Amino acid sequence: MRLAVLGAGAVGRSVVKLAGEHGHTVTAVADSRGAAIDADGLDPETVLSRKSARGSVGGADPGDALAAEYDVLVEATPTTLDDAEPGFSHVRGALDRDRHVVLANKGPVAERYGEVRRLEAESEGSVLFEATVAGAIPVLGTIADYGPDQVTAVRGVLNGTANFILSRMAAEGLDYEHVLAEAQDLGVAEADPAFDVEGTDAALKCVILANVLGNGGYTLADAEVSGIVDIPPSALSLAQADGRTVRLVGEATPDGIRVGPRLVPTESPLAVGGTENIVQLETRHAGTLALRGRGAGGDETASAVLADVARLEC
Amino acid sequence: MRLAVLGAGAVGRSVVKLAGEHGHTVTAVADSRGAAIDADGLDPETVLSRKSARGSVGGADPGDALAAEYDVLVEATPTTLDDAEPGFSHVRGALDRDRHVVLANKGPVAERYGEVRRLEAESEGSVLFEATVAGAIPVLGTIADYGPDQVTAVRGVLNGTANFILSRMAAEGLDYEHVLAEAQDLGVAEADPAFDVEGTDAALKCVILANVLGNGGYTLADAEVSGIVDIPPSALSLAQADGRTVRLVGEATPDGIRVGPRLVPTESPLAVGGTENIVQLETRHAGTLALRGRGAGGDETASAVLADVARLEC
Repeated sequence: MRLAVLGAGAVGRSVVKLAGEHGHTVTAVADSRGAAIDADGLDPETVLSRKSARGSVGGADPGDALAAEYDVLVEATPTTLDDAEPGFSHVRGALDRDRHVVLANKGPVAERYGEVRRLEAESEGSVLFEATVAGAIPVLGTIADYGPDQVTAVRGVLNGTANFILSRMAAEGLDYEHVLAEAQDLGVAEADPAFDVEGTDAALKCVILANVLGNGGYTLADAEVSGIVDIPPSALSLAQADGRTVRLVGEATPDGIRVGPRLVPTESPLAVGGTENIVQLETRHAGTLALRGRGAGGDETASAVLADVARLEC
Repeated sequence: MRLAVLGAGAVGRSVVKLAGEHGHTVTAVADSRGAAIDADGLDPETVLSRKSARGSVGGADPGDALAAEYDVLVEATPTTLDDAEPGFSHVRGALDRDRHVVLANKGPVAERYGEVRRLEAESEGSVLFEATVAGAIPVLGTIADYGPDQVTAVRGVLNGTANFILSRMAAEGLDYEHVLAEAQDLGVAEADPAFDVEGTDAALKCVILANVLGNGGYTLADAEVSGIVDIPPSALSLAQADGRTVRLVGEATPDGIRVGPRLVPTESPLAVGGTENIVQLETRHAGTLALRGRGAGGDETASAVLADVARLEC
């Protein structure tokens, strides 16, 4: 397939780097400052080294990438809330031209799911978004194969940064501020960690899951969200004394969309350590499926993007 | 889709029962003694109650089911080794007619993978077999989506009966014969448990995985297999004193296909309890994915069959 990649952050760059291994060609790449476009296929190394040397993938107008020749638009620009722009317009642009869209950007399917599905219904193109939920973990593919009607609830640890902080606080008896600083040093937490530690990122994933299971109707405003900022180390030691630990658990169930710190038994599958993610799917006839792996990272998330591209080929 | 179901054991019966929930029609069902056939769609309740009342799903010739009207042949007769008959001929019969095949029977893809793939290449039909590896767990769908080339090794606990016995032996300090009898009482082990406790069943799953990853070339004869029959309770208590336990681990790696009892840390994801299964996929770019759930059971395995049917529809 010919891919146009919008966004040249960690995920977009990894898609450019790995596309060839899967037999695909990248015909356009854009970041906020420029674009590289070649209908015959770009050389990944040239594009990526220009990006690191000069800060942009190429000298063309970024807006031209959307209009380039491609079969699949990979939307990997940063997630934005509310109107989910410019991601939403990118999705519309590709679908209007009957092209497929694979999203790594959560905005359009968290905040404007119904509109995305309506545009898709009028297009020859399809929209997939495995990469928006739990990175490398094949959550949405599994739900699609087993049938959204067959999945009665989803529950999981969906943010690696928050999980790293909670794991370290529990293991070392350190307070939140101290571990956050450490996570920032390690590159596990962003300079502005609010999106992760306040639960927004996990909530967006739960909203997307609720939309998939319920065929739309939810936005971030429907989620009941609390983060991990106010958890004292004493709460973790109390939990530990009781054979439990605290995890930031997100859920999409018939009772609603909720994200918050929860006590879980240390032996529970939900008590993953470090930056790992886990997603539990409760099914009507197949019990609980637990899917565990890396929930973030450029190559990991790009693998999910490329899995979606493979599904579009079938 | 219109389904013809060959085999009316637990899996075949569950496929008949659940097909309607997924929007499919069952046009033929056969067991070893008879068949029910109706191109307009059978009534599942009628077929299943005839099976339980009279021992067979219907009065037609079982051989006629293969020639009935259907889009997908669901092959759920018992797994046989070596020539994998009659399953293999059922696969050929459907592919010769350009129909799809979904296997729950491991024989054809463990023992005659290359032939199945060659027949498929000459047919308009496709062959899928999610249900042959780890029941409800979406192992093969994940490998297909992420790309067989991207998965470097697979390792897992792939037999629920053996795992139940090992878990109980470790938890209660009981010997093998005692726990086996208990498992037989509970219906977790068969009257003749050899297939499960000697490692054959897990080995067949690993052979199938090796065939998928390596594009064929393997049969059961290539697997190095040892079971759990000779494990003394003392081995389990020794392991326990060291923070470990014993699990029957199967693997398909570049070093070969192996099944045998292995020491694993009690905190390892491989240390699942009871009849659960877990499969770890090591990937080139996305770390290790761990998929956990019910590895057997009629409804669970039927869910995997119906997930394959959904993939054929796309």
